[in-house]
Amino acid sequence: MLALTMGDPAGIGPEITAGAWAALRGEEDIRFALIADPALAAARLGGCPVHVVAQLADAAAVFPEALPIVAPATRLEVAPVAGRPDPRNAAAITGSIADAVASVRRGEAAGLVTNPIAKSVLKQAGFPHPGHTEYLAALMGRTGDEVMMLAGPELRVVPVTIHLSLRQALDSLRTDEIVRVARTTARSLLEMFGIAAPRLAIAGLNPHAGEDGHMGDEEITLIRPAMERLRAEGISLLGPLPPDTMFTEAARARYDAAICMYHDQALIPLKTLDMARGVNVTLGIGLVRTSPDHGTAFDIAGTGRAEPTSLIEALRLAGRLTQARAA
Amino acid sequence: MLALTMGDPAGIGPEITAGAWAALRGEEDIRFALIADPALAAARLGGCPVHVVAQLADAAAVFPEALPIVAPATRLEVAPVAGRPDPRNAAAITGSIADAVASVRRGEAAGLVTNPIAKSVLKQAGFPHPGHTEYLAALMGRTGDEVMMLAGPELRVVPVTIHLSLRQALDSLRTDEIVRVARTTARSLLEMFGIAAPRLAIAGLNPHAGEDGHMGDEEITLIRPAMERLRAEGISLLGPLPPDTMFTEAARARYDAAICMYHDQALIPLKTLDMARGVNVTLGIGLVRTSPDHGTAFDIAGTGRAEPTSLIEALRLAGRLTQARAA
Repeated sequence: MLALTMGDPAGIGPEITAGAWAALRGEEDIRFALIADPALAAARLGGCPVHVVAQLADAAAVFPEALPIVAPATRLEVAPVAGRPDPRNAAAITGSIADAVASVRRGEAAGLVTNPIAKSVLKQAGFPHPGHTEYLAALMGRTGDEVMMLAGPELRVVPVTIHLSLRQALDSLRTDEIVRVARTTARSLLEMFGIAAPRLAIAGLNPHAGEDGHMGDEEITLIRPAMERLRAEGISLLGPLPPDTMFTEAARARYDAAICMYHDQALIPLKTLDMARGVNVTLGIGLVRTSPDHGTAFDIAGTGRAEPTSLIEALRLAGRLTQARAA
Repeated sequence: MLALTMGDPAGIGPEITAGAWAALRGEEDIRFALIADPALAAARLGGCPVHVVAQLADAAAVFPEALPIVAPATRLEVAPVAGRPDPRNAAAITGSIADAVASVRRGEAAGLVTNPIAKSVLKQAGFPHPGHTEYLAALMGRTGDEVMMLAGPELRVVPVTIHLSLRQALDSLRTDEIVRVARTTARSLLEMFGIAAPRLAIAGLNPHAGEDGHMGDEEITLIRPAMERLRAEGISLLGPLPPDTMFTEAARARYDAAICMYHDQALIPLKTLDMARGVNVTLGIGLVRTSPDHGTAFDIAGTGRAEPTSLIEALRLAGRLTQARAA
């Protein structure tokens, strides 16, 4: 059983949840329950059959017939309106996350899937964490080791720097951080993905991976020293690889995840290969957590245009990962 | 008729030329002749039937039966050995290029395809140009407007900055250069590719194209001003687009070429989509010139492992472009 958080109730989360339930209700190896105020159903889940259950343990039985909903401790303050986020519902949004994590810690849920939240809305309400991942790490008491992976059907990528301008990404790239991210990725591929001998590809930063220092020296000064430390820990690595040729089909066959130096180096190949089916996976926080690779999309919420594809893939991947962990 | 230069005779050029001839001899709309010292045949074209002709006009008739070779003014100094480049052959390498360009200027060849050269080998022999493209521009008397496009079956990309470290690319990005590159690309799509109303996609530099300045401001300070100038010239543009989502199949359907801010932003999607079939096209020098998207590969020259795919695609594209120009 997976716990699915509500996300921002004014975004597309409710409608993609309904779509994902309709798509997955017939798949026997995936079961999930939405952790949300039952009042959400009337406001934003119109048309989707729901069944409010007292606890997650009761959700599996109703799943084929209705979307199971488990009420969290904190309810909605105001009825959600599609496309109009309201900071008064921030406590219900974060409460759904906290309750879902608690259910994993108690062993009632095997893993966590999160619907999109809007940082700006939560910030207005005084939420102190920069984002979802940091909040989850804090709830798990595991801050400082969180890593974001993006997993598609053909490629897994892990950016070392994320939501920074390209110049800031260059300025903040550090050997220690490359080591931390790659180490956590290797451990997670083993423990969470069940890959016995994970192989990592380490991307260069510069064109042609710098050509021995002729086009940039970060490969020599930052990346190779990280690779030496990682190899000394017994981690299997390729690299630093020329970024433009490392994502071809033949190249991808040689590694299990690519450690990338900046956001678009990771996200361009992932989304170019398969835009709709990329999934976020949080590593290093001690639980299985996946999420769709898009935001709240307030601009299309309530129009019926939101695609549940990425949430469906996030639920499927969380299902596979929790089974790999259990195995 | 296309003129194909020799390239470095110690690289894979001769063997991919033989492979391309074998693959294309039956295609009626492609005819090419190799501009090379006939002595190359014995040294590096073993097994490929060749026919030395006095002039390009005689090449078409022999093409189905043998690779036509036209001797250039400057001959090889030493017999080439696979994998062992020799600066004494630099004059023969550059002479093949000069003769091929002259044949295009005289109207004997419709366009030019170049085999790979090694800049370091030519530099040792005193060659003053940074590379192929600049030399061609100088031969055409059109320096300063050359632009490199990479064209694959599914995507055309044009990097504004090319062989620079990522940091140098950031430091050297200029509005004027974005305007120049995009303008030349739009004109070439019209005049060379025969696209009546070309549409360009302009990539952002930063993740999410900077999110209105929250993650970098180059979109605001450098890219949007370039777009305003280009629009004032009547050029149809999209952008600045978030780099990670602009290369999906749905996004690609909306433009004819993507103007990219740095090497890997252009090359990662191109090579990820179709590594083998990317082709270089030089724009802005007043002739059709294509080349394979790889180097001399001295390390595998003579081993039989070189793939002629990119040269074949370069010849096919040059054939189509010269027909589009003629039409």
